[in-house]
Amino acid sequence: MADNFFDFIGDNNDGHWRIRSISTISGTPIPSADFLTIQQGNLQPSGQGTWSLKGFRSNIRYAERPEKEQLIAVQAPLGRSEATYAALIPIRKTAAWWDLTQEERRAIFEKKSHHTEIGLRYLPAIARQLYHSRDIGEPFDFLTWFEFAPEHEAQFEALLMALRQSEEWLYVDREIDIRLERV
Amino acid sequence: MADNFFDFIGDNNDGHWRIRSISTISGTPIPSADFLTIQQGNLQPSGQGTWSLKGFRSNIRYAERPEKEQLIAVQAPLGRSEATYAALIPIRKTAAWWDLTQEERRAIFEKKSHHTEIGLRYLPAIARQLYHSRDIGEPFDFLTWFEFAPEHEAQFEALLMALRQSEEWLYVDREIDIRLERV
Repeated sequence: MADNFFDFIGDNNDGHWRIRSISTISGTPIPSADFLTIQQGNLQPSGQGTWSLKGFRSNIRYAERPEKEQLIAVQAPLGRSEATYAALIPIRKTAAWWDLTQEERRAIFEKKSHHTEIGLRYLPAIARQLYHSRDIGEPFDFLTWFEFAPEHEAQFEALLMALRQSEEWLYVDREIDIRLERV
Repeated sequence: MADNFFDFIGDNNDGHWRIRSISTISGTPIPSADFLTIQQGNLQPSGQGTWSLKGFRSNIRYAERPEKEQLIAVQAPLGRSEATYAALIPIRKTAAWWDLTQEERRAIFEKKSHHTEIGLRYLPAIARQLYHSRDIGEPFDFLTWFEFAPEHEAQFEALLMALRQSEEWLYVDREIDIRLERV
C-alpha cells in the first residue's frame, strides 16, 4: 500500500540513532528522548516510543528541470557508512505561507531565498530527504532529514544559517533541531 | 487530527447517493455498487462497503493568483439543494507525469490544456472538490467530485469532453466516471 510512509520514533531506551541534542529554534518544544528510530510505517500511528512523528516521501514540489537534474547528478544517498551524524529538523510553516499560490511560494523559495541553490553548495557532503507531514494531520508540515560525516557538521551549520536567514524562513513558525549519531 | 481525509464508500445496500452508472473511461474497472456515501475519515481504512476510496483535501497546486481569485469569486459550494446530481471521477496519471517538474506539469495543465480556464467556464453551475490520493497508497491519484442540477448535466459533459481532449489527458492512464443522484 503506502510504502512512502515513515515513522520517526523518539524513545528513552533504545533506537538506531542516539540523540545528541534537541534544540527548539522556534515555537513549542517537543519532549526529550535519548534515541530515535526511523522505520517504514503506514497511515496508522506507530504507537511506539515517547513520541512519534510521521511523514511521507512525495514528488519534488519546487525544483525546476535544471535544478532537478543537478540535484540528481550531485546528491548523495542516505546510509553512507561515513555519514554517522544526522539531523532531524521538523518544521511548520505559517497559514500565510499556505495561503500563497504555488508560484508565489516558488518565488520566495528559490528566486528570493535560493533554497535549492544553497542546498546544492553542500552536496554531496550533506545527504538529505524530505518527508511531508502537513496533509496527514501531523504537528509539523515537514520532517527534514540530513546525514553527514562528523567532519562536515560545520558545513551543515553554514547551510542551516543561510536558510534560516532567508525570506522563506519568515514563514516558519515552529522548528526543532535534533542532532543524532548512529548507534 | 487529519480532518481533511474523506472516504468514498461504494455499497450495494444503502448510501447518501444512488449510483446511476459507472463507466470505465480508461484502465482497470472498479467493482459495481448501487450506492455511495462520502464521510469524513482518517488515515485508517474505512473498512466499510464493497469498496472504499480515500482522499484528502489539500492546498491548491496549480492555480496562479488571478485564477485563484477568480475561482474563489465564482465557485459554488458543495451541498446546494438544487444540485441533486453528482459525479465522482477517480483518475490516475502516468509515471511520466510524475517525473515532470512542477513547472512542466503547470505548463501542460494550464498553458497547453487550459484546465482552470475550462473549469471556470462552467462555474458556478458545476461545483467541484478535489481530493488527493496518490501519496497515501491509493489506487488512484485523485478523486474529483462534482455536484450540479440535473439540467446542467449537458454542460458537465461538455466540460469533461474539453478536458479529455486536452494534452493533460495524455497522462491519464486510469479514469472511472461514476454518476450519482442524491437519495
